[in-house]
Amino acid sequence: MKFIQKEISLKPKRRGIHIVTGEVLDNIPEIKNIKTGLMHILIKHTSASITLNENYDPDVRSDMEKYFDKTVKENEPYYIHNSEGTDDMPAHIKTVLIGTSISIPVTNGKLNLGTWQGIYLCEHRNHGGSRKIVITIYGEE
Amino acid sequence: MKFIQKEISLKPKRRGIHIVTGEVLDNIPEIKNIKTGLMHILIKHTSASITLNENYDPDVRSDMEKYFDKTVKENEPYYIHNSEGTDDMPAHIKTVLIGTSISIPVTNGKLNLGTWQGIYLCEHRNHGGSRKIVITIYGEE
Amino acid sequence: MKFIQKEISLKPKRRGIHIVTGEVLDNIPEIKNIKTGLMHILIKHTSASITLNENYDPDVRSDMEKYFDKTVKENEPYYIHNSEGTDDMPAHIKTVLIGTSISIPVTNGKLNLGTWQGIYLCEHRNHGGSRKIVITIYGEE
Repeated sequence: MKFIQKEISLKPKRRGIHIVTGEVLDNIPEIKNIKTGLMHILIKHTSASITLNENYDPDVRSDMEKYFDKTVKENEPYYIHNSEGTDDMPAHIKTVLIGTSISIPVTNGKLNLGTWQGIYLCEHRNHGGSRKIVITIYGEE
Repeated sequence: MKFIQKEISLKPKRRGIHIVTGEVLDNIPEIKNIKTGLMHILIKHTSASITLNENYDPDVRSDMEKYFDKTVKENEPYYIHNSEGTDDMPAHIKTVLIGTSISIPVTNGKLNLGTWQGIYLCEHRNHGGSRKIVITIYGEE
Repeated sequence: MKFIQKEISLKPKRRGIHIVTGEVLDNIPEIKNIKTGLMHILIKHTSASITLNENYDPDVRSDMEKYFDKTVKENEPYYIHNSEGTDDMPAHIKTVLIGTSISIPVTNGKLNLGTWQGIYLCEHRNHGGSRKIVITIYGEE
């Protein structure tokens, strides 16, 4: 039984939805030693989110972003929390809708995802900068 | 400390929300050996989702489905990803809103859910077919 | 490797979004013994939810609540599940959107959250009463 945990900073990304499966795995080569287990990722922010979805067609990501922009609008007259920019309160709401952590099975040293699944980093701010994540992998060697 | 992991195929389901607590447990009798632990489920798809909610009144599931159908519409003029059918892009969005994995405490060999909680399999495609899940249970024996 | 699990009842809260990081930690002093691990929380209900978001400005929580109240309306003409009050079916939908469990890394005996992250208890009922959660902490001592 092994527990490995590390905090890494992802490269800054423009507002939008990005696949980060490769960037995450590049930072956690120790995964190859876990025969049966799980990988947990927490994004340590309140205006960017993390989830799993389609990894192939970039149109899915841009349609997804459009959906969230239309559903969680900027400049709603009822927003009181406006001091950090018009993109800030919508970013908090999108983060609650999408979520800030995921757990993925690890099988024989690899993420056990569906063929079409990838890890999405959803950057909801216009200038979010680098985002920190904590990766925890654990299981039997 | 024990880690048990298996991949199973759920029976195909019509579009809608289904309670699969029993179908999941039938596939993982080993749960009875876990005294204190967790069960993690990942659904390996991008157009079907998994969550916990009310297990008693089927009207909750049909009202829930209506909400998601009204909120995430087919044929939005801004969708570019249309090649796999009008139900496809909405299915990806609903999956991101609802989520693709859950973790549930295991206590004395049983799922430790609330009285009214059941596992929902949300089939967002018209013809989604059989869906694969990976079940991981772990904890102290 | 240690697994600690306990069920606690949170104090009743008015409808709205509440930060419960302190209330949760007060109930699980054993966390100080976990060097590298995770804390999982399940809320055992179908009309209250749990997530992570901004812990500083109370306006974020009230704007967030307004968003969910406007997006998931009471008295939708298509709701059939009405017998438990007009706030009930919306509470189930909000719970599915926000989620009923979270996992947070534990590092050197403490929750490893971002500076601005706190645990949100989202009470979606007008009179939800006390809510039960199951806390599971596990990892290396």
